[in-house]
Amino acid sequence: MPGEDAPEHRHTQHAFRFVVEGSGVWTVVGGDPVPMNRGDFLPQAGWNWHAHHNATAEPMAWIDGLDIPFQYVTEAQFFEFGRDEITDAERITPERSRSERLWGHPGLRPLSAVPASPGSPLLSYKWEYTDAALRDQLLLEKEGFGGTVEPGHAAVRYSSPHDGSDVLPTLRAEFHRVARGAETAPVRETGSSVYQVFDGSGVVTVGEKSWTVGRGDLFVVPSWEPFSARSESGTTDSDSGALDLFRFSDAPVFEALKLARTQKDV
Amino acid sequence: MPGEDAPEHRHTQHAFRFVVEGSGVWTVVGGDPVPMNRGDFLPQAGWNWHAHHNATAEPMAWIDGLDIPFQYVTEAQFFEFGRDEITDAERITPERSRSERLWGHPGLRPLSAVPASPGSPLLSYKWEYTDAALRDQLLLEKEGFGGTVEPGHAAVRYSSPHDGSDVLPTLRAEFHRVARGAETAPVRETGSSVYQVFDGSGVVTVGEKSWTVGRGDLFVVPSWEPFSARSESGTTDSDSGALDLFRFSDAPVFEALKLARTQKDV
Amino acid sequence: MPGEDAPEHRHTQHAFRFVVEGSGVWTVVGGDPVPMNRGDFLPQAGWNWHAHHNATAEPMAWIDGLDIPFQYVTEAQFFEFGRDEITDAERITPERSRSERLWGHPGLRPLSAVPASPGSPLLSYKWEYTDAALRDQLLLEKEGFGGTVEPGHAAVRYSSPHDGSDVLPTLRAEFHRVARGAETAPVRETGSSVYQVFDGSGVVTVGEKSWTVGRGDLFVVPSWEPFSARSESGTTDSDSGALDLFRFSDAPVFEALKLARTQKDV
Amino acid sequence: MPGEDAPEHRHTQHAFRFVVEGSGVWTVVGGDPVPMNRGDFLPQAGWNWHAHHNATAEPMAWIDGLDIPFQYVTEAQFFEFGRDEITDAERITPERSRSERLWGHPGLRPLSAVPASPGSPLLSYKWEYTDAALRDQLLLEKEGFGGTVEPGHAAVRYSSPHDGSDVLPTLRAEFHRVARGAETAPVRETGSSVYQVFDGSGVVTVGEKSWTVGRGDLFVVPSWEPFSARSESGTTDSDSGALDLFRFSDAPVFEALKLARTQKDV
Repeated sequence: MPGEDAPEHRHTQHAFRFVVEGSGVWTVVGGDPVPMNRGDFLPQAGWNWHAHHNATAEPMAWIDGLDIPFQYVTEAQFFEFGRDEITDAERITPERSRSERLWGHPGLRPLSAVPASPGSPLLSYKWEYTDAALRDQLLLEKEGFGGTVEPGHAAVRYSSPHDGSDVLPTLRAEFHRVARGAETAPVRETGSSVYQVFDGSGVVTVGEKSWTVGRGDLFVVPSWEPFSARSESGTTDSDSGALDLFRFSDAPVFEALKLARTQKDV
Repeated sequence: MPGEDAPEHRHTQHAFRFVVEGSGVWTVVGGDPVPMNRGDFLPQAGWNWHAHHNATAEPMAWIDGLDIPFQYVTEAQFFEFGRDEITDAERITPERSRSERLWGHPGLRPLSAVPASPGSPLLSYKWEYTDAALRDQLLLEKEGFGGTVEPGHAAVRYSSPHDGSDVLPTLRAEFHRVARGAETAPVRETGSSVYQVFDGSGVVTVGEKSWTVGRGDLFVVPSWEPFSARSESGTTDSDSGALDLFRFSDAPVFEALKLARTQKDV
Repeated sequence: MPGEDAPEHRHTQHAFRFVVEGSGVWTVVGGDPVPMNRGDFLPQAGWNWHAHHNATAEPMAWIDGLDIPFQYVTEAQFFEFGRDEITDAERITPERSRSERLWGHPGLRPLSAVPASPGSPLLSYKWEYTDAALRDQLLLEKEGFGGTVEPGHAAVRYSSPHDGSDVLPTLRAEFHRVARGAETAPVRETGSSVYQVFDGSGVVTVGEKSWTVGRGDLFVVPSWEPFSARSESGTTDSDSGALDLFRFSDAPVFEALKLARTQKDV
Repeated sequence: MPGEDAPEHRHTQHAFRFVVEGSGVWTVVGGDPVPMNRGDFLPQAGWNWHAHHNATAEPMAWIDGLDIPFQYVTEAQFFEFGRDEITDAERITPERSRSERLWGHPGLRPLSAVPASPGSPLLSYKWEYTDAALRDQLLLEKEGFGGTVEPGHAAVRYSSPHDGSDVLPTLRAEFHRVARGAETAPVRETGSSVYQVFDGSGVVTVGEKSWTVGRGDLFVVPSWEPFSARSESGTTDSDSGALDLFRFSDAPVFEALKLARTQKDV
């Protein structure tokens, strides 16, 4: 809500924020103010100090993803409070965080910086880049050069510019765009996924069940349940005229431990 | 020169092009036309088909870097000619290559593509991004947040968006910007480097020798010779008002074989 | 018990057997009969067919370690039954399994074999080698050349001869020997451990509690609880005159996910 | 020769010794005396102090392999002399070096030791283990369980017990045994190999040329030349009744730099 603050703290849990509505809040990570706007993805590797502040007069909504269940069962959790107040210098709202100015140039790594902890050193993946990447893939497909996962299905994975790995050691995040009228082939995978319908509408099928989804809906795909999605977006109800799905999952856990399995012909 | 073609071929040598003057030529890599303009860096991993064509009425100049000496002594060279002619569809000059449309979005990897061979899947690192990254580093330093290698010395390494590694298995490429009046501390390293003065002017010191350099000059820093550079750029003779140095070296060979050494207090 | 069989099956769970009493049973892994004797450690990576048979007239006891809880919470479990009967050729009791004949020569890898699945290709770590390695470490210490973790504390980790990693992707196994009169310094670690007192006797301290243990006892060290052990073994009650502890833990999970922490000055 | 010493020194070149005749000399590596006997393989990673001493009244012969040509062309060489005299404590001739007592137990890694430099921490690979591993492979083949590279062709690679990699960052070493009457299929590879006929006799073919070889012969297989060997060993002229070949090559350089190629159907 407007004017709200979250005090500075840090925890071993890896976390991210994906902004679903509004803009104006920023989060301060290790002293670096990171602006937040609809569609932005902000990874936050464990054990970094962070705080939040809403500098605007509007409410705002985001998805907070943390690997709390995993760290709970494995008894690996640590937590500390930080300073009571962040400084005025940290209360500014820059257009780009310092992390983006260091790590946000495609294929260019700063010689001055080596990430000190696991997880991406890039603290914000702005919507405009995600949107452009998906648009490019669908255009490449239309020109006859592939680029999509399958016909009408564009997808990117948020990754660390340091080493190309998942943005967080235990969490994977992706964005999928299904063009109007297209349908993805059923796939089953070990690991659980959460989807948020960022834009558009359509029908999703998980195992034996199908249902209609629209902007703002959240749904879960449990481990090893076949999943597919069909876009029935209209041109009006969607920025891209497509079914836009934000996805996060615990796939890195399965891959790190050699437990990952995928089956495409379900 | 205007209208010139180089026929399609491929070789095991890893190579790159760094454009020092002009624009209008493009290179076709695996059927993907890649435009070339001053300041652009184009890596070209071994064993990819490629050809060149100058579509303009102007001459153009670039540095061609290959690991021929290394592959010669190790007897690892292979070469093949390809098609006699490239197709008309490949003769277009797009603003962005297909590789950039797939891999040029910061921190976003296409789910459709897994690089088939070693080396970066991004075939062009455009000057505008390199320039912006260096400018950002010097501004961050001015604001008191570090970001540079040392005072007045910004630097980026061209890296693979797939895994963050060097763009080519045997060649490293970097761009260094030394602000007007600044001087880098002497460093000695195993491995040889070639520098091109892309812009500005100054004095470089290699071992016991110092000399003045200006735009367009090339010089070599042999293995284990201490190197430093001082910028004496004027505001007029340089795009950035700084000494801009493109660098390439065989450092990945030394690192892969655990032979790399660096000494900073020379 | 004598004559008992366990039918052939396979599962995704990684497992091991550590033999605490008796001998004569063997296990058949992918058609390879592996003999089992007191002190032997047998890792069994997931998804390998295996069966057991007790060919002797004596009962026998071993510890079966599986990563069932971990795979349960992550919903990654798969199971299949195999053949109803193993063949007569598999019912022989060789002195060494075929895996040992291929992979049991120190520092020598067979050119013919590349492990097809994660986990150690060596299916048995015989007690005589474990015992010899621990004895060597204590002798090196006595001669003044180190070799032990700390005074009087020898330890080995069972590892894959293929790549030196833990024997199983989710499970670590070690053997610790504390010389008579010696005491280990308290250490706390993320991840849970189970210890079996293979031989000797002494006092163990976990967190605030201490108690006496002897041959055959099992105890647990929960995540982040400080642990130390003091040997009070007599010369008669122990093969080695020391406190011999078999240990297994889920440390590889924590390391793979960058969640591992250790604190030595508790 | 008897009584000869080589003074203590160290260099960046990675090196090994393979003993072809005699016994009694030992080498001191970082203060650890390592005995040398016919058939033993001793890797010696760069930048370790070492010295040699012949404590017997007999001459002795070994192959000294170093990566001098490679380090010469890459200008990566460093060299230092050490103490003038080694101590009396280092002049003893133990049956096993300390490195073997720590690292020579199959599949067991000492918790006390982490290798400080690249290359194997195991400083001696004794002939008796190499011989046993090759014998085991040929017996497994005879029993119908594979284990050899191809019929009648057993082979092991000397590897680091720390991580399973080649014993030295730039050098690979293997031992091949071709059973009497067997012949290896032609293979071509990038990288050059040197073979020493340790025992037995036969015919080798390199490219278009074939010739007869016997115990003590050395020959070279240049990069990309097809190679095969046929054993014509008699039962009397060979310890194993086979053609025994020690081999070393620069394959790790090619693999590290993604330049390795192999062709089996020449």
